[in-house]
Amino acid sequence: MTRAVSLEEYAGRRTDLPFELPTRVRINEVGPRDGFQLETAMIPTERKIQIVDALSRTGVDGVQVTSFVRPDAVPQLRDGAEVLRGMTPRDGVEYAVLVPNLTGAQRAAEHQVDVWETMLSVSDAHSRANANRNTAEALAGMADVVALAADVGVEVIGGLATALGCPFEGRLPYDRVAWVVGEYHATGVRRVTVADTAGLADPAHVYGLCSRLRADFPDMRFALHLHDTRGLGLANALAGMAAGIADFDSSVGGLGGCPFAPGATGNIATEDLAHMLMLLGVDTGPVDLDALTRLSRGPVAESVDHPLESSLSRADPSWFLYPVPDRQELPSR
Amino acid sequence: MTRAVSLEEYAGRRTDLPFELPTRVRINEVGPRDGFQLETAMIPTERKIQIVDALSRTGVDGVQVTSFVRPDAVPQLRDGAEVLRGMTPRDGVEYAVLVPNLTGAQRAAEHQVDVWETMLSVSDAHSRANANRNTAEALAGMADVVALAADVGVEVIGGLATALGCPFEGRLPYDRVAWVVGEYHATGVRRVTVADTAGLADPAHVYGLCSRLRADFPDMRFALHLHDTRGLGLANALAGMAAGIADFDSSVGGLGGCPFAPGATGNIATEDLAHMLMLLGVDTGPVDLDALTRLSRGPVAESVDHPLESSLSRADPSWFLYPVPDRQELPSR
Repeated sequence: MTRAVSLEEYAGRRTDLPFELPTRVRINEVGPRDGFQLETAMIPTERKIQIVDALSRTGVDGVQVTSFVRPDAVPQLRDGAEVLRGMTPRDGVEYAVLVPNLTGAQRAAEHQVDVWETMLSVSDAHSRANANRNTAEALAGMADVVALAADVGVEVIGGLATALGCPFEGRLPYDRVAWVVGEYHATGVRRVTVADTAGLADPAHVYGLCSRLRADFPDMRFALHLHDTRGLGLANALAGMAAGIADFDSSVGGLGGCPFAPGATGNIATEDLAHMLMLLGVDTGPVDLDALTRLSRGPVAESVDHPLESSLSRADPSWFLYPVPDRQELPSR
Repeated sequence: MTRAVSLEEYAGRRTDLPFELPTRVRINEVGPRDGFQLETAMIPTERKIQIVDALSRTGVDGVQVTSFVRPDAVPQLRDGAEVLRGMTPRDGVEYAVLVPNLTGAQRAAEHQVDVWETMLSVSDAHSRANANRNTAEALAGMADVVALAADVGVEVIGGLATALGCPFEGRLPYDRVAWVVGEYHATGVRRVTVADTAGLADPAHVYGLCSRLRADFPDMRFALHLHDTRGLGLANALAGMAAGIADFDSSVGGLGGCPFAPGATGNIATEDLAHMLMLLGVDTGPVDLDALTRLSRGPVAESVDHPLESSLSRADPSWFLYPVPDRQELPSR
């Protein structure tokens, strides 16, 4: 049996870094959308509702419940409306749905949610591959979505796919990213999620882009959506925090991926992100890491047909101590 | 078919971080020792020699070839002498063997290598579990090893297992780590490897410990040996570089683990570390990332009975671009 010492006892208050960390980080769980959309196993609607409700109870700040995309394009999410009707909203949790276009927004408007997250690609090639239109065309359609959101009284978060790299075009110039952010700003959007859609970013890239965006758009709030495809997910999150980012998307179990990038693994795992933040002494609100890992190892792992990518689904938190073995049984280090 | 743009074209020179990075980082490959020792599949001696020689040709700065531990305790490395005799040393590569005690040192002295890495645990509980003696007893035995090394003209690197956390005792006080470093110093050792044996560290812990050690022992050279058990391996490497560390152990494919920590995954993967350093514009010497990933995906993956943990064994480097698909085939983001 392991024994968990208290986190405070284990790590104390941490100030040992050459930069400031945010005092409080908000975790936005996107597994039920960004994760489930790519799963090949059939996940029953009841199971999705169970997982969304369990995620709400883990203490994360937000849950992205589903996406109003075309059911034939993303059959895994065709029961999004049923999930929204079946789930039990919890006070203090911000519920979002992904809304790719006006048709999706009109469907979303039938439901009570807090946020619509729009999504467009900063790179033309990814935008065309993903949505059959280039970035400017996608932006032109966005104003109607934002107007409808204002009508129904829902906040919009502007998503920036490929902002930290495109699998077809590579790294994009800062001015290209800033142009899309500026277009969002012009429609009235004040929250933007900078996405590393294919897990291509490195810490210096994240720090540089986020620092410039925050300086150039001081009245906007930026979130990071990171993938761990090349093992850099948490290093990139650290660099984002160094640049003042305090809002992160993540997915329970590390679900997710990128359909255009072979070998792409998922989003940074919610439990791994929370574990890092706790070790660093960053306040994550009421997040219950034990509940998160039980959910990940149990219902989430049982719902998919592959091993989970998250570290905490396999290893215990750092502050769990093991009993000392009686004698030498195993090799060195 | 993917197309690789040049790294320079992709990332340019990176200076976007709130701290300095080392200009040059030395990578010390430990897979043939720290990785192979735990594998359950029988790896033929010829295959080990082939992998050590291939690693030498990837341009890494050092290779830890084997360990002179008791053959009954670590049967996987019982052919260490044959591997050393069979391999082809390459100019510019520093070859090391692990030497846990005087008996091991006497066996190691029969071979031509550049470095003996000793190993002792900073925590008494881990030291007893691993070597049937406490830390002070292990230190007392170390002087004879260092003296023999001087006789045969080989350099010693002092290894500090559990310096960044013990699975039985938790996080150790700085003074305890500094005491062991000081004892090494007193025997004449000037290179020390600070190990996160069970993958328990976080970036603030790494930064704080390494900064203090470098300040308190200015004539010593410190390396980091990190495990990726909780997904923090590369974030911890970044924090180590921020503290001025420019020497890192890593293992091809992410081989390795910790026998005392269930769920523990391996060392940080050499190909993932090199990929991050290249993106950050840190000079890795003549490291050939393509050769490393081919070795990882080929002979290394074929030698073990489990999937590799490294990211680059599955995903291509960030600067590989994919062809644009003809039409929308797959879901958003």
